[in-house]
Amino acid sequence: MTDDIDTLPSAPGAETTPRHLAPGEVGLVAPRDFIYSQPFSFRSGQSISGFQLRYETYGTLNATRDNAVLICHALSGDHHCAGWHTPADKKPGWWNNLIGPGKAVDTRRFFVVCANVLGGCQGSTGPSSSNPETGRPYGILFPFVTIGDMVRAQKLLLDHLGVIELHGVIGGSMGGMLALRFATDYPRFTRRVLGMATTGRESAQAIAFNEVGRQAIMQDPAWNRGDYTKDAGPRVGLAIARMMAHITYVSDASMDRKFGRRKKDTANSDAYTFDVQFEVEGYLRHQGQSFINRFDANSYLYITRALDQFDLAHVDGTLEQAFAAVEAETLIVGFTSDWLFPPEQNRQLTLALLRAGKRASYAELSTDLGHDSFLLESEELYGLVRGWIERDQPYVFDYAI
Amino acid sequence: MTDDIDTLPSAPGAETTPRHLAPGEVGLVAPRDFIYSQPFSFRSGQSISGFQLRYETYGTLNATRDNAVLICHALSGDHHCAGWHTPADKKPGWWNNLIGPGKAVDTRRFFVVCANVLGGCQGSTGPSSSNPETGRPYGILFPFVTIGDMVRAQKLLLDHLGVIELHGVIGGSMGGMLALRFATDYPRFTRRVLGMATTGRESAQAIAFNEVGRQAIMQDPAWNRGDYTKDAGPRVGLAIARMMAHITYVSDASMDRKFGRRKKDTANSDAYTFDVQFEVEGYLRHQGQSFINRFDANSYLYITRALDQFDLAHVDGTLEQAFAAVEAETLIVGFTSDWLFPPEQNRQLTLALLRAGKRASYAELSTDLGHDSFLLESEELYGLVRGWIERDQPYVFDYAI
Repeated sequence: MTDDIDTLPSAPGAETTPRHLAPGEVGLVAPRDFIYSQPFSFRSGQSISGFQLRYETYGTLNATRDNAVLICHALSGDHHCAGWHTPADKKPGWWNNLIGPGKAVDTRRFFVVCANVLGGCQGSTGPSSSNPETGRPYGILFPFVTIGDMVRAQKLLLDHLGVIELHGVIGGSMGGMLALRFATDYPRFTRRVLGMATTGRESAQAIAFNEVGRQAIMQDPAWNRGDYTKDAGPRVGLAIARMMAHITYVSDASMDRKFGRRKKDTANSDAYTFDVQFEVEGYLRHQGQSFINRFDANSYLYITRALDQFDLAHVDGTLEQAFAAVEAETLIVGFTSDWLFPPEQNRQLTLALLRAGKRASYAELSTDLGHDSFLLESEELYGLVRGWIERDQPYVFDYAI
Repeated sequence: MTDDIDTLPSAPGAETTPRHLAPGEVGLVAPRDFIYSQPFSFRSGQSISGFQLRYETYGTLNATRDNAVLICHALSGDHHCAGWHTPADKKPGWWNNLIGPGKAVDTRRFFVVCANVLGGCQGSTGPSSSNPETGRPYGILFPFVTIGDMVRAQKLLLDHLGVIELHGVIGGSMGGMLALRFATDYPRFTRRVLGMATTGRESAQAIAFNEVGRQAIMQDPAWNRGDYTKDAGPRVGLAIARMMAHITYVSDASMDRKFGRRKKDTANSDAYTFDVQFEVEGYLRHQGQSFINRFDANSYLYITRALDQFDLAHVDGTLEQAFAAVEAETLIVGFTSDWLFPPEQNRQLTLALLRAGKRASYAELSTDLGHDSFLLESEELYGLVRGWIERDQPYVFDYAI
C-alpha cells in the first residue's frame, strides 16, 4: 500500500474550520490497546503467553451490538484508517476518504473498528515486541503467523468490544484475505464481506516478488538473523524491498502519467550519473526511505510469508468447499489495472462463492492506478460500498443450493 | 535474459554423434578479440585510449563482403550466441536454436557476427577492465556508455572484419535497441533490421525496476563506490537485482505453469520457514547465484543506465524524425505476454517507421513466456526471420514519402 495519499484540499473558507472538524470527518481520534493475557496458539503450533492489538474505533456500538464494521488493512497499513491523531498531522488515516459521518462507511450508523494485525509493528504484538522470556525483541523467535491467526486475534478483540456479530468486514489486498477468512472461520458472526483487489491465493509471480523482498532484507548484514535493535536494523534491505514492492502496487500507465521519463533536474538533463536522474527514481527512493522509518523488517518477513501461505482452497480442497459454511453476503471488487492480484483472481473468488450457493456480487472498476486502486477517491467505488453496506439483508438464507 | 535454455535433447542414435557435430550446428567455435588502439570518445564526452571487443563469427564473409548478419545481445547476454566452446559445454550459445547451417539465420549463406558490448564484462572493455592509467579496474571511472556508443564500437569491429554493409542486424530487448540504432546511425550500411521485444524508449516502470536493481547493488557495502576486486564485489546486491529483473523477463502465466504454488519439499509442505518453501523461490535464488558468477556489478549499473537513457525520439524530437534517414527494411516482432517492453511499444516503432515512409513490418506472436519470448523455440518465429532475411530487396528505394 502506498503512503502518498494526499492531504485533503482546503475547502473554500477552510481557514476558519480546521480540517479535522470539517463536516464528514471523524475528527481527532486516539488508538487504544487490547491486551489479551491468555496463551495464544498459532496455526504453526507455536504459542505466546498473550498479545496486544492496537486499534481504533469510530462511531458507537448500538444497543443490539450488531452494527460493527471491521476494516482490515493491507501489508504495510495499520489501525489508523480514519481521522487525525493531532490537528497538526499531515495526513489523516489511510482510508479517511471512505470512512466518516455521511461517507460510504457512515460512522453515524456504524461502529467502525480497525486493528493493526498480529505480527505487525504499529503497536500490535509482533517480532519487534519484547519477548517476556528474554526481555528482548522476539525477532525470528516470534511464531510464524498466518492470515487465520490474524483473524482469530481480531475476533478476540471484537468479543472484548462486545460485538455480537459483524455487520460487515472490509479489506483491500491482504485486508481482503482477512475479510474472506472471517467469512469462512466465523460464518455466523460475519454478515457481509467486501474484498477489493484481493485473491484466494497468490500466484507464483506474487510469491516471487515477496521472496526478492525477503532476500533483500535477510541478506542485509544488519539483519543479523533477525536480531537487531530498533535503530540498527536492515534498513537498506527493507528500503530495497519496499521500492520493488511499490512498483507492483501501481501500474505502468500510472507511473508513466505521473513521471514519464522526466528528468529530475531539467537544467542538467543530459548529465551522466548513477544518482537520481529520472523523477521516478527519486520518488521510489523516497518510498523506500519513508518506509524504513515506520516499518519493522522482521514484520515484513512474517507478513509477506503469511500472504504467500494464504490459500483458501488449500484448507478444503477447492474454493467452493472452502466457502461451504459462509453465510455472509459478499461483494468482490477487482480493478482492471491491478497486475498483482488481477481481476481474474477476484472474479474466481466470486464465481466460487456463487457455485457454493452464496450471495455474492462482483464489480470490476476500470482504473489505471494498479493494485492500489482500492484507495482510489471514486464516487463509483463509494456507491458500491454504500449499496453493499446499507442493503437490507434477508433474515433467512433461502437461496442455498 | 534468462540463462536456463535447456541443453538439446539427444536425438535417437546420438550416442555416436556428439551434439556439436550434428547437422545444423555451427559446431565448436572460439571467441576472438578485436583490439582498437586509438582513442574512443563516448557520447558523454569522456574517452578511453582504446578498447577491446570479444566476438564470435560463424560462416564466411563472401567476396562482395555484403553477407554479414550482426547479432546484438541483451543486457546480460554475450558474444557467444551459437555453437559450443568445448564438447563438454553444458549449453550451446544463447541463440543456437536460431543460428546454424540450414537454420533461420543460415550460416551457409551468411557471415554471422556477435560481439560483447562495450561496457560489458565478458571480454569486452568495461568497468571491470584494467584502467591503463592506474593498472586497476576502471570501476566507476569508466565512461558512461550509451547504446549509440556500443553501436559505434561494433561498427569499428565490422570495418575491421572487412564488412562493407550489413545484410542485417538482429536483436531482442536491448539488442533490438542496438539494431535500431545501427539503422539510424549507419543508414547506408544497414540494409535490414530485425528487432524483437524491444522499444524506442523505456517506460517509467522499466526505469523503476532498473533503479531498484542499481540501488540493491550500490547500497551493498561490498560495492564500495565501484572499487572492488573480482571476487569481492557486491554479490548480494547483484543477486537481488537479478532475481527481481528475472521476474520481469517472464510472465505470471509462465511462472504459474512452471512452478505454481508447488512446495519445494513435499514431505514437509506445511513447514513454517523463511528458507525456500515454494519452488519458485529456489528457482529465483538459483538465478541470482548463477548470475553473480558470470556478471560484473558495475557493468550491470552501466548497461542498465544505457537502457534507461536510450530514447530514439529524444535525438530528433519524434520517432518519425529519428527514422528519417533509415534505409533498412525493418521487421519488428512483439510478444503478447511481454510486459517489460509490451507489444504496444513494438507497434509504435513500426508505425513510426511506416509514417516516415520506410519499409517496415510488424508481427505479434501470441506467447505466454513474457519478455524472454524472443528466445523461444518456435517455427513461427523462425519463419518470420527467414522471410525477413532471405527476401530479395529492391535496389532502389522507390517508396519514399
